[in-house]
Amino acid sequence: MKKIEDYVMSIPNFPEEGIIFRDVTSVLQDAEGLHLAIDLIQEKLKGLEFDVVAGPESRGFIFGVPVAYNMKKAFIPIRKKGKLPRETVSVEYDLEYGSASIEIHKDAIQPGQKVVIIDDLIATGGTTEAMVKLVEMLGGTVVKIVYLMELAGLCGREKVPGYDVESVIVYPGK
Amino acid sequence: MKKIEDYVMSIPNFPEEGIIFRDVTSVLQDAEGLHLAIDLIQEKLKGLEFDVVAGPESRGFIFGVPVAYNMKKAFIPIRKKGKLPRETVSVEYDLEYGSASIEIHKDAIQPGQKVVIIDDLIATGGTTEAMVKLVEMLGGTVVKIVYLMELAGLCGREKVPGYDVESVIVYPGK
Repeated sequence: MKKIEDYVMSIPNFPEEGIIFRDVTSVLQDAEGLHLAIDLIQEKLKGLEFDVVAGPESRGFIFGVPVAYNMKKAFIPIRKKGKLPRETVSVEYDLEYGSASIEIHKDAIQPGQKVVIIDDLIATGGTTEAMVKLVEMLGGTVVKIVYLMELAGLCGREKVPGYDVESVIVYPGK
Repeated sequence: MKKIEDYVMSIPNFPEEGIIFRDVTSVLQDAEGLHLAIDLIQEKLKGLEFDVVAGPESRGFIFGVPVAYNMKKAFIPIRKKGKLPRETVSVEYDLEYGSASIEIHKDAIQPGQKVVIIDDLIATGGTTEAMVKLVEMLGGTVVKIVYLMELAGLCGREKVPGYDVESVIVYPGK
């Protein structure tokens, strides 16, 4: 039987020289890969008590919604600035070049709710830290953060010390 | 019991005067609404033989992936220009102001495969027509197109005559 790693295509020198791009679309494009990826993310949540799943645009939607569906939870989209139609709160964070803003609907999380964040990949952790801030601005508690893939060499989890971060596949490099 | 329509928040005069925005995030933000939406989309596929689900960035991911998971199919993301890491084919199409390009991986669909397209909303049908073209450029056959919501007053389905288009919720207006 194929392991989840076998479904991930690695593209050297993309988007720039020296970077190995880990392509999640090659997982989705195989019915068994897709099923396995979602099941393995969900396994990380076994026995955990929580209220809602949150995930960022757009690959966080890919893994967050099926898990929310399977576990009968709501799904809260976190989006780039200007995409959500109702009242939002937003966080700006630094990228390698410039900065970005992400937003969440103000009424999406109730104070005291336990939130699980799901996304495809943790790299430098900038988005992770910003998502945690958004949830906490609304009074929610981040009880777990689950990634399909982690580029451990970029130390993203160090941006959210004390939080429970787990990844299905850990690549030692960048 | 609440109907699916009851979960959709309608926001008048957004993004501009005279438009009623149908907000799908309000459906997702309720665990029962999310479950119901996905089940109702899936019901439209009962008894249909097909190979893969395709859906456009980013709200098509929300509904397409859970259906693909439940029905043990692959999911093929259709994305805006420049977002997919491997070789793509692309289609340019007109918007009200200007134009847009969407892409699909060249190896995502095999000639002869039966494809179901899933998205949240059909409005003027420009994206729908472009997605059908992409699938057919790769030799796939679009056997069904399912939307959660349809703005029937914008006549989007007239852009893809002869295709089987079904929507869970049909709003008569724009």
